[in-house]
Amino acid sequence: MLAYLNGQFLPRADAAVPVEDRGFVFGDGVYEVWRVVGGRLFETERHLARLSSGLGELRIQAPDLVDPERLTAIADRLLTEDGLLDGEATFYVEVTRGVAPRTHQFPSASISPTVFAMANRFKPAEPLRQSGATCITMPDIRWLRCDIKTIQLLPNVLGKQAAADAGALDVLFVRDGVITETSHANVLAVIDGAIRTHPTNNLILAGITRAVVLEIARDHGIRVDETPFAPSDLSRASEIFLAGTTTDVMPIIRVDDIVIGGGRPGPIATTLFRELRRRLDRLAHERAGRGAATASA
Amino acid sequence: MLAYLNGQFLPRADAAVPVEDRGFVFGDGVYEVWRVVGGRLFETERHLARLSSGLGELRIQAPDLVDPERLTAIADRLLTEDGLLDGEATFYVEVTRGVAPRTHQFPSASISPTVFAMANRFKPAEPLRQSGATCITMPDIRWLRCDIKTIQLLPNVLGKQAAADAGALDVLFVRDGVITETSHANVLAVIDGAIRTHPTNNLILAGITRAVVLEIARDHGIRVDETPFAPSDLSRASEIFLAGTTTDVMPIIRVDDIVIGGGRPGPIATTLFRELRRRLDRLAHERAGRGAATASA
Repeated sequence: MLAYLNGQFLPRADAAVPVEDRGFVFGDGVYEVWRVVGGRLFETERHLARLSSGLGELRIQAPDLVDPERLTAIADRLLTEDGLLDGEATFYVEVTRGVAPRTHQFPSASISPTVFAMANRFKPAEPLRQSGATCITMPDIRWLRCDIKTIQLLPNVLGKQAAADAGALDVLFVRDGVITETSHANVLAVIDGAIRTHPTNNLILAGITRAVVLEIARDHGIRVDETPFAPSDLSRASEIFLAGTTTDVMPIIRVDDIVIGGGRPGPIATTLFRELRRRLDRLAHERAGRGAATASA
Repeated sequence: MLAYLNGQFLPRADAAVPVEDRGFVFGDGVYEVWRVVGGRLFETERHLARLSSGLGELRIQAPDLVDPERLTAIADRLLTEDGLLDGEATFYVEVTRGVAPRTHQFPSASISPTVFAMANRFKPAEPLRQSGATCITMPDIRWLRCDIKTIQLLPNVLGKQAAADAGALDVLFVRDGVITETSHANVLAVIDGAIRTHPTNNLILAGITRAVVLEIARDHGIRVDETPFAPSDLSRASEIFLAGTTTDVMPIIRVDDIVIGGGRPGPIATTLFRELRRRLDRLAHERAGRGAATASA
């Protein structure tokens, strides 16, 4: 497998960052993960806009890569050389403040950010989506800028591991009496026929899949209410589902001991997944069309 | 300068970690910083106990290094080869969960943690200590396990930078109406003749220097009350000071617009610094004595 690191393409096993990289000593950086279908990045612009906004929040000088053409060129090469032009993949980009002697405050403006990218084969969790997954709840102990997609992910790691230990797919974080999101996806409920989900503020990441799914819901005349719901609302929810780049739309049929929707995936999650999958397939098809055109030329 | 990385000593400029190190992609690790005087680590055991406890909290398999003899041997070689046996230095150790394909939950137990160590020259902030320093206050937006010394340090980085932007030494974090600590030190106040400081719970790091300074205070018959104080208490504090490994005891003479103790370092901070400095000097002297013995042998 190949990696992109600071302008170079190299075997991933050889890609290394200096021990004084601020990503390694402070977690001082941001990242993005794209879904890739048929060699094409899904929602390129929205992910790039979020990356750019995160870099701005941390006052990290935006590298050249924050440009759709440049980014696509890097992704293309990684996907091509790693044999990922067909089927499903992910594209990961991380940008840290760079390498400098360790001191908390920002180093002089002259250091360059570290830019790392990789592509990986991805396998959607299809059998699980058919049956529906389970979640546990846990206190949300993360910092108060969850809206920035930083590499400060230890509480997410610990939450995901707690879920794995409990035999569940993921954790629903609970802060101030309401459910915020999971370790790496947003969470939505259907209550009284409307979709309820935490509003985009400093307590959650404004997920791209969340935004796409809410668009689809509105297009289908499903009412959307960005008001958070509480663990005590779970028992009256007809559906619970997650939305995320590598989660798509995932029905949740049990949270802790509460069975949701009779223990089966519900109609709204099913519709939203189908429409999201159509968008992904359409994008993959554009690629296939392009490839076919090239092949016949 | 030399680095220690996973059992090897190598030029620090050559020391690098794979891009898939979980320290670099998740901030999944802990660290410690020792004060070093005359080639000797200050409070070796207490720092090691905290490191060991942090590794346990994160369920990272403790590496060989969590042993006083092993640690001291690594520090000795770094300090010797970097020419840091005389005067002041710091010794930094970081342990991450190790290298594995990126997925939030823990990788299989068979991966080895990454262990990085370095020593650096250190210069105490003596002129500033004479005059006293200033701080600003800011909301404490960190996660709720500040008791674990992890590399989840971005909010600390942003706080320290905000202080630097304001021409101040550091930031006093305020959570739920009380002052917790600074970006990398504990904070103590003298109110009605007693030292007040936030109790050691999940909201602050249990600083080693904090513990030493409180010991010294009690030995000197100074009353210690581990009850947090509020920003509104600042105006009636006769002294404010910080305590930390690279901070020693630092008098704070202004917080935001509030002048503390008439704008001069107070007697309790001065006494505590003097006694802390004596302990450091005694340790340095032990080394000098040991060195002299060796030289005359």
